Amino acid sequence: MAVNLTAPDPQSLLAVDGVTLGIAEAGIRKADRKDLLVVRLEDGARVAAVFTQNRFCAAPVVVAREHLAQSGANRSIRALVVNTGNANAGTGEPGIAAARATCETLAKLLGCAPAQVLPFSTGVIMEPLPVDRVVAGLPRCVERVNAGRWAEAAEAIMTTDTVPKAASGRFKVGAGEITVTGICKGAGMIRPNMATMLGFVATDARVSGELVQLAVAYAADRSFNCITVDGDTSTNDSFVLMATGRSAMREITDAGSSEYAAFRDAVTDIAVKLAQAIIRDGEGATKFITVRVENGRSESECQRVAYAIAHSPLVKTAFFASDPNLGRILAAVGYAGVDDLDVSTVDLYLDDVLVAKGGGRYARYEESDGQRVMKQSEITVRVVLGRGTAAAHVWTCDFSHDYVSINADYRS
Amino acid sequence: MAVNLTAPDPQSLLAVDGVTLGIAEAGIRKADRKDLLVVRLEDGARVAAVFTQNRFCAAPVVVAREHLAQSGANRSIRALVVNTGNANAGTGEPGIAAARATCETLAKLLGCAPAQVLPFSTGVIMEPLPVDRVVAGLPRCVERVNAGRWAEAAEAIMTTDTVPKAASGRFKVGAGEITVTGICKGAGMIRPNMATMLGFVATDARVSGELVQLAVAYAADRSFNCITVDGDTSTNDSFVLMATGRSAMREITDAGSSEYAAFRDAVTDIAVKLAQAIIRDGEGATKFITVRVENGRSESECQRVAYAIAHSPLVKTAFFASDPNLGRILAAVGYAGVDDLDVSTVDLYLDDVLVAKGGGRYARYEESDGQRVMKQSEITVRVVLGRGTAAAHVWTCDFSHDYVSINADYRS
Repeated sequence: MAVNLTAPDPQSLLAVDGVTLGIAEAGIRKADRKDLLVVRLEDGARVAAVFTQNRFCAAPVVVAREHLAQSGANRSIRALVVNTGNANAGTGEPGIAAARATCETLAKLLGCAPAQVLPFSTGVIMEPLPVDRVVAGLPRCVERVNAGRWAEAAEAIMTTDTVPKAASGRFKVGAGEITVTGICKGAGMIRPNMATMLGFVATDARVSGELVQLAVAYAADRSFNCITVDGDTSTNDSFVLMATGRSAMREITDAGSSEYAAFRDAVTDIAVKLAQAIIRDGEGATKFITVRVENGRSESECQRVAYAIAHSPLVKTAFFASDPNLGRILAAVGYAGVDDLDVSTVDLYLDDVLVAKGGGRYARYEESDGQRVMKQSEITVRVVLGRGTAAAHVWTCDFSHDYVSINADYRS
Repeated sequence: MAVNLTAPDPQSLLAVDGVTLGIAEAGIRKADRKDLLVVRLEDGARVAAVFTQNRFCAAPVVVAREHLAQSGANRSIRALVVNTGNANAGTGEPGIAAARATCETLAKLLGCAPAQVLPFSTGVIMEPLPVDRVVAGLPRCVERVNAGRWAEAAEAIMTTDTVPKAASGRFKVGAGEITVTGICKGAGMIRPNMATMLGFVATDARVSGELVQLAVAYAADRSFNCITVDGDTSTNDSFVLMATGRSAMREITDAGSSEYAAFRDAVTDIAVKLAQAIIRDGEGATKFITVRVENGRSESECQRVAYAIAHSPLVKTAFFASDPNLGRILAAVGYAGVDDLDVSTVDLYLDDVLVAKGGGRYARYEESDGQRVMKQSEITVRVVLGRGTAAAHVWTCDFSHDYVSINADYRS
């Protein structure tokens, strides 16, 4: 099903010094499946996160934000707890209480403060979280924590993902090296009942709390904020960066240093791999599409155009059909909300094929060339606006019969 | 296929004094189908229109706008010419020349100025208009003009519509009565290759040019601007109001008069019927959905919320499946861009069923009640924001396998 994506080899997922993971089958929604994950961090880890902009954010997002705000300049967090099977969203005050009870139980087991625990949930929206089962599963998670459990952790946070998603690497930073390992879940920005994109990346880098926050936002903007399956922003989206500081290196404290740039780029590299995996496993996806918009006046106008193309059901069904019906792309450019756009400067490329020049069909464009590119499983759409120097890109997938099936038939 | 929509009875479509219609089979894209329409207006008719906001607007839109701008305070227009089979969009300068040539030929046949002719096209985007065939078909249209051809005209402008769309009525205005008759086409805001929503409404009312313009914008805002199938804004959308002034009545010149209000409401009534017919014939539609958002701070924020719901592929597939998976609606409310929305004041109704209260699932909501409403072919979603007195509504349809089939398989 997924486009050029297979489950990660557990051997390829490097342990991160200071991070251990424990998984349990808590029976939250279904029996006998891994559905509860504890990520334990040694003292000294610095954690930062970005969350969904959805006003109907889930209870765990409310509590995680609050705990991070209380964590001070050192952003000292000792554990993450993630359940699948229930999003704990649209659940009102009882939902908040359930998220707090989860943190309190885990804090007791680990000997830390409840505010040092960050909760995350994914699954059905608007149904009460079976908090008793979550709480009952926590001791088993804690007993089993181990540094080598990243592949299992990737499995434990899946909902309707068809493939577990993880990425890992060693990166040079200054004179030394750091490890970065991450997992994520999601097959749409929001899933049917099974809501949520979640991403967790850990590194042994030694970085100040402030720069961990800066890096998580930077990486998110270039990875999870560049993807769309269906344009639905989830109630639970969270992306978390954990820096344990265990690597033998001088602490990075200067946002202008080459060490910070190397650290930030390493985190971004892993985040991009994870984000692209979500698109490759997009609901019903048969193609991986990069939409690149260039020569705009600002990055934000390039993004608007890229998202208009990436969200257009007509463009997405054309990709599914391998039909070079490319007027649909021009139409999306035209309604993207760039009010003073002069279409006579707009060019459109499909991979290397020039399709439209100066706002109209290119005289030497042949449908057979468009057809050739449309048949590929990976395609780049490039729109050149011809009015500036800014650029932006979005990764997306096509729109197939399976998308409708997955989303229409899920609960039936 | 269409939801509670059948072809109009030709007898029900009243002739409008001063308007005659001629249809031909010009072979523009397919042989032996009605694909060319001339609407002839007697001298004195006043015409106003609203057009697509798409920057990639079609050549006929450019030319029609230009001709209306030249028509002066009396908005004196003598004919409309509409072809189906080719949208003449994304066609650059040759497209503009083709639209002008069409107007010139028709003007010669009718003995008026080319600037008194408005051109419209619908069909494939980014392919050259076979202008020779259009021009060759015009004499046949003109020979055949007749006041009783509204039903045929509705047929002649169809692309992949499954049902011709028309509405007609007699309305009291002051002491007298007026006739309003209209036709439209479209089964999405944009069609695959077959692009475009077009709407043409004629009346014998005597109204100043200024008030014809005011009324066309008013009616469009309450009809064609309240519908969405897939969120794709076409390159060719046009809605035209023609007032022939043949009715025995005093000319309406005061925007504050009760006669103007009655005229405006009559036009809006017909426009709403036409717009709803487009949704009932929406691509793959199996349900007609009214999304109503109430108690917002402004109409525009209510519209934003209504469109977020109406465009969400997840909400639309849930309707298709008759699945009361209503957390998806709350999620769409949450990401609609009302940045200071306090979700704890938000209520959600499905027809008469209270689903969520104060931002969370209503304690006495039963899934079986939601299920009952979801099975209907006509459903109202009502979101009460609880922060003001403004309201807005949008009409839309569900999202089915057939939508994907229609749009993916169209050209193959």
